[in-house]
Formats: sequence, C-alpha cells, structure tokens
Amino acid sequence: MARILKKRSVKSGLPPGSLVYVGDTSTRPATVTVMEFGGGVFREEEVTSPDGFLPSSDPSTVTWINVDQVHQVDVVAGIGERFGLHPLVVEDILNTDQRPKMEDFGDFVYIVLRALTCSGESFGLETEQISLILGRTYVISFQEKDGAVFEKVRDRIRAGKGRIGRSGADYLAYSLLDSVVDNYFIVLERIGERIEALEETLVSNPAPSTLRAIHGLKRDLIFLRRSVWPLREVLCGLQRGETALVSAPTQVYIRDVYDHTIHAIDTLETFRDMISGMLDIYLSSISNRLNEVMKVLTMIATIFIPLTFIAGVYGMNFLRMPELEWAWGYPAVLFVMAAVCVYMILYFKRKKWL
Amino acid sequence: MARILKKRSVKSGLPPGSLVYVGDTSTRPATVTVMEFGGGVFREEEVTSPDGFLPSSDPSTVTWINVDQVHQVDVVAGIGERFGLHPLVVEDILNTDQRPKMEDFGDFVYIVLRALTCSGESFGLETEQISLILGRTYVISFQEKDGAVFEKVRDRIRAGKGRIGRSGADYLAYSLLDSVVDNYFIVLERIGERIEALEETLVSNPAPSTLRAIHGLKRDLIFLRRSVWPLREVLCGLQRGETALVSAPTQVYIRDVYDHTIHAIDTLETFRDMISGMLDIYLSSISNRLNEVMKVLTMIATIFIPLTFIAGVYGMNFLRMPELEWAWGYPAVLFVMAAVCVYMILYFKRKKWL
Amino acid sequence: MARILKKRSVKSGLPPGSLVYVGDTSTRPATVTVMEFGGGVFREEEVTSPDGFLPSSDPSTVTWINVDQVHQVDVVAGIGERFGLHPLVVEDILNTDQRPKMEDFGDFVYIVLRALTCSGESFGLETEQISLILGRTYVISFQEKDGAVFEKVRDRIRAGKGRIGRSGADYLAYSLLDSVVDNYFIVLERIGERIEALEETLVSNPAPSTLRAIHGLKRDLIFLRRSVWPLREVLCGLQRGETALVSAPTQVYIRDVYDHTIHAIDTLETFRDMISGMLDIYLSSISNRLNEVMKVLTMIATIFIPLTFIAGVYGMNFLRMPELEWAWGYPAVLFVMAAVCVYMILYFKRKKWL
Amino acid sequence: MARILKKRSVKSGLPPGSLVYVGDTSTRPATVTVMEFGGGVFREEEVTSPDGFLPSSDPSTVTWINVDQVHQVDVVAGIGERFGLHPLVVEDILNTDQRPKMEDFGDFVYIVLRALTCSGESFGLETEQISLILGRTYVISFQEKDGAVFEKVRDRIRAGKGRIGRSGADYLAYSLLDSVVDNYFIVLERIGERIEALEETLVSNPAPSTLRAIHGLKRDLIFLRRSVWPLREVLCGLQRGETALVSAPTQVYIRDVYDHTIHAIDTLETFRDMISGMLDIYLSSISNRLNEVMKVLTMIATIFIPLTFIAGVYGMNFLRMPELEWAWGYPAVLFVMAAVCVYMILYFKRKKWL
Amino acid sequence: MARILKKRSVKSGLPPGSLVYVGDTSTRPATVTVMEFGGGVFREEEVTSPDGFLPSSDPSTVTWINVDQVHQVDVVAGIGERFGLHPLVVEDILNTDQRPKMEDFGDFVYIVLRALTCSGESFGLETEQISLILGRTYVISFQEKDGAVFEKVRDRIRAGKGRIGRSGADYLAYSLLDSVVDNYFIVLERIGERIEALEETLVSNPAPSTLRAIHGLKRDLIFLRRSVWPLREVLCGLQRGETALVSAPTQVYIRDVYDHTIHAIDTLETFRDMISGMLDIYLSSISNRLNEVMKVLTMIATIFIPLTFIAGVYGMNFLRMPELEWAWGYPAVLFVMAAVCVYMILYFKRKKWL
Repeated sequence: MARILKKRSVKSGLPPGSLVYVGDTSTRPATVTVMEFGGGVFREEEVTSPDGFLPSSDPSTVTWINVDQVHQVDVVAGIGERFGLHPLVVEDILNTDQRPKMEDFGDFVYIVLRALTCSGESFGLETEQISLILGRTYVISFQEKDGAVFEKVRDRIRAGKGRIGRSGADYLAYSLLDSVVDNYFIVLERIGERIEALEETLVSNPAPSTLRAIHGLKRDLIFLRRSVWPLREVLCGLQRGETALVSAPTQVYIRDVYDHTIHAIDTLETFRDMISGMLDIYLSSISNRLNEVMKVLTMIATIFIPLTFIAGVYGMNFLRMPELEWAWGYPAVLFVMAAVCVYMILYFKRKKWL
Repeated sequence: MARILKKRSVKSGLPPGSLVYVGDTSTRPATVTVMEFGGGVFREEEVTSPDGFLPSSDPSTVTWINVDQVHQVDVVAGIGERFGLHPLVVEDILNTDQRPKMEDFGDFVYIVLRALTCSGESFGLETEQISLILGRTYVISFQEKDGAVFEKVRDRIRAGKGRIGRSGADYLAYSLLDSVVDNYFIVLERIGERIEALEETLVSNPAPSTLRAIHGLKRDLIFLRRSVWPLREVLCGLQRGETALVSAPTQVYIRDVYDHTIHAIDTLETFRDMISGMLDIYLSSISNRLNEVMKVLTMIATIFIPLTFIAGVYGMNFLRMPELEWAWGYPAVLFVMAAVCVYMILYFKRKKWL
Repeated sequence: MARILKKRSVKSGLPPGSLVYVGDTSTRPATVTVMEFGGGVFREEEVTSPDGFLPSSDPSTVTWINVDQVHQVDVVAGIGERFGLHPLVVEDILNTDQRPKMEDFGDFVYIVLRALTCSGESFGLETEQISLILGRTYVISFQEKDGAVFEKVRDRIRAGKGRIGRSGADYLAYSLLDSVVDNYFIVLERIGERIEALEETLVSNPAPSTLRAIHGLKRDLIFLRRSVWPLREVLCGLQRGETALVSAPTQVYIRDVYDHTIHAIDTLETFRDMISGMLDIYLSSISNRLNEVMKVLTMIATIFIPLTFIAGVYGMNFLRMPELEWAWGYPAVLFVMAAVCVYMILYFKRKKWL
Repeated sequence: MARILKKRSVKSGLPPGSLVYVGDTSTRPATVTVMEFGGGVFREEEVTSPDGFLPSSDPSTVTWINVDQVHQVDVVAGIGERFGLHPLVVEDILNTDQRPKMEDFGDFVYIVLRALTCSGESFGLETEQISLILGRTYVISFQEKDGAVFEKVRDRIRAGKGRIGRSGADYLAYSLLDSVVDNYFIVLERIGERIEALEETLVSNPAPSTLRAIHGLKRDLIFLRRSVWPLREVLCGLQRGETALVSAPTQVYIRDVYDHTIHAIDTLETFRDMISGMLDIYLSSISNRLNEVMKVLTMIATIFIPLTFIAGVYGMNFLRMPELEWAWGYPAVLFVMAAVCVYMILYFKRKKWL
Repeated sequence: MARILKKRSVKSGLPPGSLVYVGDTSTRPATVTVMEFGGGVFREEEVTSPDGFLPSSDPSTVTWINVDQVHQVDVVAGIGERFGLHPLVVEDILNTDQRPKMEDFGDFVYIVLRALTCSGESFGLETEQISLILGRTYVISFQEKDGAVFEKVRDRIRAGKGRIGRSGADYLAYSLLDSVVDNYFIVLERIGERIEALEETLVSNPAPSTLRAIHGLKRDLIFLRRSVWPLREVLCGLQRGETALVSAPTQVYIRDVYDHTIHAIDTLETFRDMISGMLDIYLSSISNRLNEVMKVLTMIATIFIPLTFIAGVYGMNFLRMPELEWAWGYPAVLFVMAAVCVYMILYFKRKKWL
C-alpha cells in the first residue's frame, strides 16, 4: 500500500513550507555532485559545503548539481536558500509522493516526475521521485534514491561528444527527462514479457496462482499509469513553449520525449485491454476444466445407478421370483447389465456428452 | 442513506431564501469565536451579542469569525444581515447538504466544502459542511458540527509564527482550506489500511463478510468522491485568479492545495480500480473453494458407486451363481474391488483431477 | 414502454407546424387561469374566451397564464396565435414528448422541462411536460396534466409576500422552475428509501423479486436521467445571461436552481453506482446460498455412500465369508460404519467444509 | 455482415474520383423525376435525357431532381457533370456506404444521410443512403433504392399548401431531411415494441431464443447508432449557419430536425441501457431456474440415500443379527425409515431449502 | 508481443539522434527507386549512389524517392543528410515502432503511418511503418518491408493518366496516403468475414477453440486500433491546412482520406461492440449446454434412487416380512416400481424440467 500513498498524514496541520521528509528513510548520506561544462570548461566534483553550490557566473557554461538521497533535509534546504527557491518547492522536493507536474516561477521551472526501475529477477517494480530545477544557466536534479538513471548522461558530458556539450541548460534538462522516459520502455518490455508468459500459462495450465499473477500485473499497471499519465501534460506544456527557459531548438527535442511518453501511455492502455481479456479467458478455462471433470464423474455415476438397481431387484428375497431359478438367469442378467451399459455409453456419445 | 441525501424535501415549495436548517439536529448551542490579528494586534474572544461580529475598521488586521453548530438559525441569520450576505448564501449555509462550490459576489467570495473525519476504531466516516466567507479583511467560517479541524490553524495564529500573522484574509482562508484538505489524506490512509487488510483476508480466508466489507468500502469511496471531486473546480477557480480577493502570492499557495486535491482524487480513483479488482478475486476464490469441495466429494461418490454395484451383483439371489460357491470367491471379489478403487484413484491423479 | 417513447409516429410525414396532440388522451377539459399582479394590482380569474389572454398593457404588472391539460389543441393554438408564438413552438407544446430545452426567439424564451411526481404507495413514477413561455411582462405555462406543482407559487403570489410580488416576469419564471426542481428531491428521497429497503432485503432475504425490484429501480433512474440531465444545459444557458429577458439579479437565483439540478444529477449518478453494486451483491448472495445448500446435501450423500457400500459387501451371498459367522460380526460392522461416519465428519470439519 | 461493411475493397488502388457503384446491385433502371415549383409555376415530369436536368433560370422557382436506384453509374455521372459537382462527390454518391456527413463546396452543399425502414412482420431493418445536393435554386436527391420516404413531401408540393410552396430550396432540403428523421421514430417504436415483448418473455418464459433475440436487438441498435449519431453533427453545422445556402428562417426549422435527432439518439441510448439490463436478468433467471431444478433433485437423492443405507444394513447376511428375528423388526424398520424421511423434509423446510 | 512493443530498450541511454534500426532484421538489401514526372518529363530508375538522390531543380516536376527495407542505416542516413532532415526524423524513420504522427518542419512535413496487410489463409495480420517526407517538389517514402502497397500508384504515374501527372508533390503524398488507407478496408473485410464465421460457429457448435478465436479477434482489433486511431489526427491536421505544403485543391482530397479513416475507425468500434456481445453469447451457450447435460444425468439418477431403495427394502433379511411370501409379491413390487418411475417422469415433464 505504501506504494499508493505515503504517510503524508505526518504533515497534517503543519504550516505550508514545513520541511519534513516524507518517504522511506535511509541511512545513507546525501551525495551532491557538481558538473560545469560548455565553452571549453569542464569541471566535476563532489561538494560538501553549501558554498560550492552557486552556478558559475560565466553565462557560456552550464552547471549541473545532482543531489542523491533527498532525505537529508538540511542539504535540500541549503540549496533551496541559495538558489532562491519558493518554500513550497523545497517542501515538494522533500515530499517524495508528488504527482508529476511542472511549475513555472519565471526565474526557474520546477519539474517533478517519477523514475521507474524493475529490480532483479523477482520483478519488483520500484519508483523514485525526480525533481528538476531548470534555471537559465543551471539544472539542479534531486533523486529520492541513488539510482543510476543519469549515469549515461554523465558519461556523454564527460566524453564531450554530441549536442549536449554545445547546448544550454534546457538541453541538459531535456537529456535528463529523456533518460527517465527511456527507462519506462525497459519496464514496459518486462511487463510485456510477463504478459506473454502468463498467456502461455493460461492456455496450458491455468491455476489460482495465474489469477494472482494477473491481479499483480493489473496493479502494477495501475501504479505505472499514475506515474506516466500526468507526465504527458508536463511535457506538453514544455513543448508548447509555455516557459521562456526552453529555447525553440530544444522544443523539437522535448516534442520527441513527448512522443515517447504518448507511446508509453498507448502501450500501457493496450496492456490493460489485454489483461482484462485474460481475466475472462482464465475464468472461462477454469470453469471449463471443472465442468469437464464434473461431467465425466456424473456420467460414471449415471451409468452405474441403473445397473445397481437391477442387481438390487434380484437381491430381493421374494419366495416366488421365477428368474432366480432359471439355469441361465445369472448370465442373462449380467448380459442385460452389459447391454444397458453399452447403450448408455453409445447414447451419451451420440449426444456428444462424452 | 441519510449520508447521500438529506431531508431537503422539508423545504419544497418554500420561497427561495427561506432560512430552514437542513441536517442532523443537535442540542448544543452554537459557538461564535472571533479572532483579530495582524499589524501587532491580537484579540481572541467568544462573543454572544451580534454587535461584536463586525470586523475591525483597521485595514491592517484580519478578523476571523468562526461559527460552530450552524443549526441555530438566528445566529447565522444575524451574521448574514450584519455582513450583507445574499439571502441565498445564508440559506445555503444552513442547508448542510451542499455540493462544494464557489460563488463570487464581488465584496466577498462564498466557498462551500466538506470536511471528512473518520472516528474511532469502527471507522465511521463522517462529513460536515464547512462554509467560508472571504471578505477583504475578514473570513467567516461556519462548521456544521464542532470538529477540531481548525484547531491547528488557531494555534499557529496564537503563536504568531509563520506567514499567517503577516498575511491577509486570503492567506487565512487558504490555511483553512489547506487544513481541511490535509484531513482528506488521513481518511485516505485509513481507507488504504482497510484495503490492505481486506486483501490479506481475500487470500487467506474469503467469507461473505469480506464481500460486505468490499461493498462498504466501495460505498465510502462513492461518498468521498462526491465530497472531493467538486472541490477541484472550486480551487481551480481560486487559483486562476477568478476573484480579486485572492492576491497573487496567495494564488501560489492555493495552487498547492489544488495539487493536493488532485492527488487525493487520483488516490481515490486508484482505490476504486483496486476495489473493482478485489471483487473479481473474491468471486473467483469463493467459487474456486466451493468447486474444490464439490470435486472431492463427487470423486468419493464416483469411486464407491462401481464398488457398490459389484457388491450388489453378488448379493443377487440366483440359484446358480458359480462364483458364490468358489472357495476364494469372497477374497477374489474384495481384491477386484480394491483393484478398481486403486485404478480409479490413479486414473484421476493422472488426469490431475485429484 | 410508453414512458420511453410516445407515439410520435402519428405525426410522420405531416408538414412541420402541424398541431397534433401527442400523449395520453384525457377527457378533462383544459383549464386556463390568468393571474395579474405587481404594482399594487392583483387579479386572478379563470378565462374561457381567448380575448382575456392578452397581457395587461401596464408594464409594471406581471401576467401569468397557466394552461392545464394541453390536449385541447384549439386552446393552445389560440394562445399561440395571440402571443405570436412560432408554429414550431406551438407544435412542441402539444408534442408532450420533448427533451428539456430552451429556445430564445428574441421577444420570448421557450423553455420545456419535465415535472416528476411519484403517486401513492405503489410508487408509480409519473412525468409531465411543462412548457414555459417567458416574455417581457408575461409568463405562460402549459401543463400536460393538472398537477399541483405550481400551487405553492400561486399561494405566495396571493399572499403578496416575498420578492415574487415585487419582481418581474423573469422572477416568476424562476419560481416556477424552482418548484419543479424542488419536486425532484421528493422523488429522489423516495427512491433513496426504496434503495435502503432493498439493501436490507438483500442481506436478510434475497429472492428473485429483489432482482426485479433492482431492475425496476434501475429503469426508473434511466427514466429520471432523461428528464433531469438536459435541464442542466437549459439552466446553464439562462444563468449565463444568454437571453436578455432574464435580469442580472434573477440570474443569481437561476444559478441557485442550477446548483440544485447539479445536486440532483449528482445524487442520481450516486444512486446508479449504488444499484450496480447491489446487483453484484444480489447475484453473489443468491449463488452463495445455493452453494451452501448443495454443499450440505452433497456431504450427506458422500457420508452415506461408503456406509452403503460396506452394507452391500456383507449382503453378498458367498458361501465362505468368515465374518458373517463371527459372533460379534454384526456389531463390529456397525461400529466400523459409525467410525467411518465420525471420521468423515471430523475430516470435513477440519477442512472447513462443514 | 454486409450491413456493417460493404465491399469497398473493389475500389482499392483505383485513383480517387473513380466512378464505381458500391452496394447491392439491382436490375431496376434508375428513375429521374424533376419537379419545378414556386412563383406560380408547377411542373412535374420523368426525364430521360440529361438535357432536362438543368434547373430553370427563373430564380423564383425551385427545381427538385430526384434519382432512384443510383446503381446506374452513367445517370449519376451525367448529373454530376451538368451541375459541376466535384468528382469526389459523385464518387461518394455511388459509394453507398458513407457515414452521414456534410460538405460545403460554396456553390452547393453535399449532405449524406441514411434512411431507415423496417419491412414487414419479420422486422427486417433496412437502410439506404440518401445523398442531397443543395444549390441556390435546386435540390438534387439520390436514393440508393426506390423507397417511398419522400412521397409525402411530393404530395405536399403537388397540393401547393403550406410553407413549402412559398419557400426556397433550403426549405425543400429541410423537408427531405425531416421526412427521413421522422422515419427513425417509426423504426424506434418498432424496436420499443420488441423490447416490451422481450421483457414479458424474460419474466414468463426465458429460453435460449430469448438470448438470441436480445443479441439481435443489440446488434440492430449498434447498426442504428452508426446511422443516427453522425447526423447530429451534420444538422448542428447546418443549423449554426455554417453555410450561406441556408437562410435564417429555415435555420429555425433545421434546429427542429436537430432536436428530433437528439431525441432519437437519446432514445437509442436508453434502449441500449435497457437491453444491457435485460441480459443480466436473463442470465440470472436462467441460472435461477436451473438451480431450482437441481436443488429439488438433489434433495430427493439426499432423502433416499440414508433410507437405502438402512435397507442395506438389514440386507446383510450375518448369522447373528437379533433384529432380524424380532417379530416387529420389519415394521419397526419401516417406521424408522418413515421417521428419518419426515425429519429430513421438515429440516429442509425449516432451513428454507425446499 | 513483439507486435505490441518492439525492442526499443536497445536504444536506452543513447543520445538523441542515434541512428539505430529498431525492428525485425532482414538480410535483403535496401532498394531505392527514383521517379521524376510532370511537365512532360518522365524518368524512373533504381539508384545506388547517394548523388542521384537530390530532386531535380526543375520546379515543374515532382520527384518521388522510395526506399524499401529501411534496416540499412547508411542508406537512410545518406538521404537524411542530402535533404537536410532533422536528426530526430532520421532516427524516427529507423525506429519502426512509431505511433502515426505528423511533424511540420517548415521546409518539409514528416508523416509516419502504418500499413496493414493480412497474409495468406492463416490470416496473419502484419504491419509495417511507412514514413513520408513531403517537400515542395519531392516526396520521399520509406517502407519498413517491401510491400506492394504503392504499386498501383506507380502504375498510374507510368500510365500518365489522371490528376496525378498534372499535380504537385502534395497530390502524390495524398495518393500514397490513400493507397495505405484503402488497404485498411481489405483487412477490415477479412476481419468481418472472420466475425461472420465465428457467429455461425457460436450458434452451431461452441467450443473452447471458439473462445480463443474470439480472443484472437479482440487482440487484432486492439492492435488495429493502435495503428488507425492516431492517423485521424494526422489527416485532420493536413486537411485543415496546418502546413503550407498542401495546396487547397489537395486539401479536398485529404478530407476524403480523412473521411475514409473515420469510416474505418467507426467500423473498428462496431466490430469491438459485436465481439464483446459474442463473448456473452459464448459463455451463456457453453454453460447452457453443460447445464442441459447435468440436468438429464441428475434426472436419471433421481428416478433410479427411489427404485433402488424399494429393491433394498425387499432385500432385507427379516424373518417376518409377509410381502415376501405373497404369491404376487414380486410382480406387485415390479409394478409399484414402474408406477413410481412413470409418475416421476410425468411430474418432471409437467414441471418442464425434461
């Protein structure tokens, strides 16, 4: 359940802007990485003092500050103060249960979205909140955990290849959004594989565990939907140039991420449709199997009941039962029984009941 | 049913503006509390005479008048007269069965919303109507019952800390809205816990009472939805600056409450999705359990019916039944019976019916 | 079915504007009542000649003409001619199967809506078409039957109390609309009571008649929906000032009726949700009860079948069956039977099948 | 299936504007009727040469050209050429599988809609495509078959009564649309009667044929919906004055047809709701009836099984069974059997199982 | 599953604009065909060197470059470079898992859509991505496979007949779109035939394979929907003149394709409605058949159980059972048995259970 609704109630009644971390606690300290690049400059360091947090005054470089493990309230609050973030933004960064949204504060844009990962073999779908602050010459990203979701972007900056080294902060923000959305497809592919596996089980060997698996899938999709759907609106706003901080060339790239998000949503909805069909198939094949069993068993009973009756008749103790004294009485009765049995089997076969 | 539709019919045919209290009656008298604060001033008193109701003429202070137990028609009517409220507004305050809405009358804004509480262990979901009148320098709040929903706001004003002491009436109204919406999450968490508990019961021990519990949850959600959904529109209007009484800085805060409401709605819809899945699981596992029982019982019957038939055959009284006279006839028949029995059990096992 | 679709086909192929009454015929003659009031004047009379139909030329008074039993085509046609109504409007007044709608013809507004009543104990939901013509200084209302829906408005005018005596024709039209919508809540409360009663029956004693009652309720709701939903749009148009005949102060009142209509629609939809849940509960508890019966019966059979088999064995007529000659053979067999019986009952109990 | 999708594939790959008739072929030749009226003129003739097709140059008269049996490609193509119709319009007239739509080409408006008829006793729902070309002084109508749907309009023109003789081409087009929509109500009434009949059968005697009838109705409604829904948009466009060819007075009339169409759609949706409820009732009452049968049969079996067991006990051949030698043993056993039987019946009755 | 989601994950983490082919690999080389026509010119050749790719500088001719088998990355990249395509466009052409969309880059419009084919007798529904680049004087089309979908357009150009030879690049693009959409109807007709066949099977001989067939159909429709729905928006944009590259006369033609697409969507939705009805019929007739079998079998058992009981009574070994010694005892008992049997059959018949 924690996945659906975090313990937000701890904040009930507190004044707005109260900085309380809402989410799973962790003992690992927050890590703050600063990268400055562009205009021939390249700098990368892990900082500890808040003084290192300010972006370079050189307008040709881009500063990227990444904070892992946002549960350390003081670090987030310190950055918020330095960059003049609105108290509600700092509160939202710490409150790791946000719905994806974008808020434009003029000087900077605040974007919340959710990264998805599925860990290991047991397919544990996990989510973390990613908060992005996009300013004119800087990007600040806050990760709830310390996922490796941004690692490849970091590599590209280090390598200095591609557009990323030549473009502004908006392109960097785009790259981060893109790497988060790219991850959705990995999760969707895993879910696709699970659906495929389930469909085979459905045909070959449906069991109550299949039902639970269908239910689990359905739930994961509900959960995914909550994360992905609202992102559509966020990207739609960015792409349409609602904020002055995203330049026209980057808007083309944002449109591309937007398209990917639509594609992910589309796939999600298709999966939902497929799963609802699977439930019907499951229920129908379970009931079909049971019915087959019941039919055969009932038929066995039905065939033997008349035979038992005949045996019962000749087990009666009447003094005058002429058949009992006939020489061929016993074989005759056995023959009649066999005939009745054969007739019933043939009758059932003709009626296609067997 | 009272929860869904109050006895509005008592008002049928009365002229508009008729002041009739619609709701559960109570014997407790209405309580009117006046707070004045801001600009260095702080005053708090319980008033009884209507003269004390007018806001201070000092434009730098904010006056908050809170009325508990609106069932006392004369008190509400008196305030309405003093503050020049439209007769329909006074009527709506008394008619505690309103759908959340906002109405802008120029001088003041009338906001209706519903507070939710879940009392005690038996999880009784309760609702009360909160009416807010936001004027330039005053806020009047009407509570149907005397819930403690505003207690923490009162504490913050008394402590004089935070923005609330420095801001205007619109920020006070925001704080009241915020504390009502914060309460929704407590209710939603309680519902989340009930869903969790139910899901475990579903797997371990489904019973007709589980079905009733699912039904009860579904109903509570229908009920919640009616209270929360329309609030979205209300806050959307306030946040977009449809009224001149909400200043731009406060609009940012209203947007925050709006986001919380969207989050609550989102969670509600997710709960609904989850519950509809639970009904399927319940029906399927109930029918599964029954089918298992029936299958085993039918199989026992099916195994014994042929054996009984064999016994019946040798219970016939024919004079010439050679087997009866064989020395090993009886053991041979017992052996045949055992063989038939074992064969059938193996056959059923091979077919995976057992 | 008549309730869903009246015999409109009698008009098929006729030119537009053909005056044919479509609806249940009645032998009662039409009644035309004229009321003139305001500006110190009060006049009330039943007229028979069409000459009395014209509104007073005094602009400070309001004339209200009410026609019961619109099935008399000549009366309606006469009024239509005198007031210069469009032929299509007269046709629609007679065609008592209209969907609620508003049409603005500049000089007058034509409003159609449906009044609902539930008669007597058997809860027969009945509907009648109300047509309103709102002019500058007059209101003409046409009732399909002669319901008492406007009686209280008439009393208020006679008493000369409240706004109604001081306001214009638009306020009178509002009062008529309001009294129709107020009636919806009486019908909804009756339906609410039926739902409550059904829910208790569902738990205590579900029977096929319960299903029919659920079905009947569902149908009544479908029917209600058709009457109430389109009214929303009508009132929305009036409230937004789409017509010049409704003054700004009255618009506030119209907004109030609009809110009531939304509330009625909301309640309707909630009822629909509740009823669809009831069908699930019904089907589930019916099948549950049957399954309980079948389970117990099958268990009785299952317990006796092995015992009957044992009796069958010792009923065989083999010459050499040593047990038959034992002194304690019979009691021993009876004991074995009792043991088997007890074992099976305990086994079923442990498995929670009993 | 032909009803859902005509053999459009024969046109696959042909260039646009290819004139191929798509629809059921007929051997009857096309009939072209020309009517000219208005301004004191009245002329009616069946023409064969394309020369007669041009409208009179007198601007005060209206020319109506009606073509039955559009399967004759050359006739349609000839008219298209003479009146300067766009090749795609001519193609669409021949392709009798269009969705209702309106296209404005400046000089003329092209309207496609579908007429519905239900023939004879067996209720065969049939449809034909009606294409209307509305020019300034002429209307051309193309009927797929030679239905009598326009006969009454023709009669009205011949009689020279009503507005139709005094109005322009737009009013004629309106009259044609109106007569098509009027026919929908005849079809809907027939469907209403079928639903009524089915509902009685559902209660009195549900059978598999009832299910097929429900399914057939559902299908007819799907089919009707396809024909009626898009018409709404068409009429909405005409009524809002999107085209200059419809004068303001006629727009009022178009609004009337629009209202009728909304009414028809409303009724359709109500029927759909009712039918979906019927399926639930059907399934429930079928299963209820079967369950009743099974319950009674199972009870008979359950009552006799213990009795048979008692008989089996006293059929055992033990040497020492004291009861067998009692003088009243047999009657006593019979009495015990009767007692067991009575007890079980009473028990079942008390449990309300019988 | 591959049909729903291609292995997009291989691209995860790569910078945008990375040219990686996503789709089924093929060993066949890409084929590039160039056609130039219009203004008296006609040229057709297969080119291999990228130099031949540039459109003729003559503004009166249209150049059409068609690329089959886009899996050859270098060919696509070469064309992209020459025509100045945006890197994201080239990436999307290679990424053959796009949702249909249109993007306007000023100089050219990029359109993605999906062609459908159903191959052979086994009805394998297949899809391929078609990318179109529409420039001022050229069209470039990329086909994922080498389907014959454009063959007829090629023939029309070669024949030099019709508008296509006289019109510009926009008309060529229209023709390509039209031939793709025309193919949808072939697929829909095949699906219509399958539905027809299934419906007959449903009535005559429902089997579990029928259920799988229904499920397969449902899935194909989900799949089709994903391909066809978004195309609607694409064509809507083109038709409304959102891009300057489509001239007004061609917009009329685009509107025609748009209408066809709406028609295809309409048919799809109708098919979906029909299939959901079929599932109900299937489940109901399967359960009906089983119930018939169970009823007959249970009745046979019910008739014989009382008879067996009677036989059991007279099989008891009491010393004093007077009936056993009666001369006509045995025939009398046989008669009683026959009477019970007949009575039960008549009773069941009267109750309509048989």
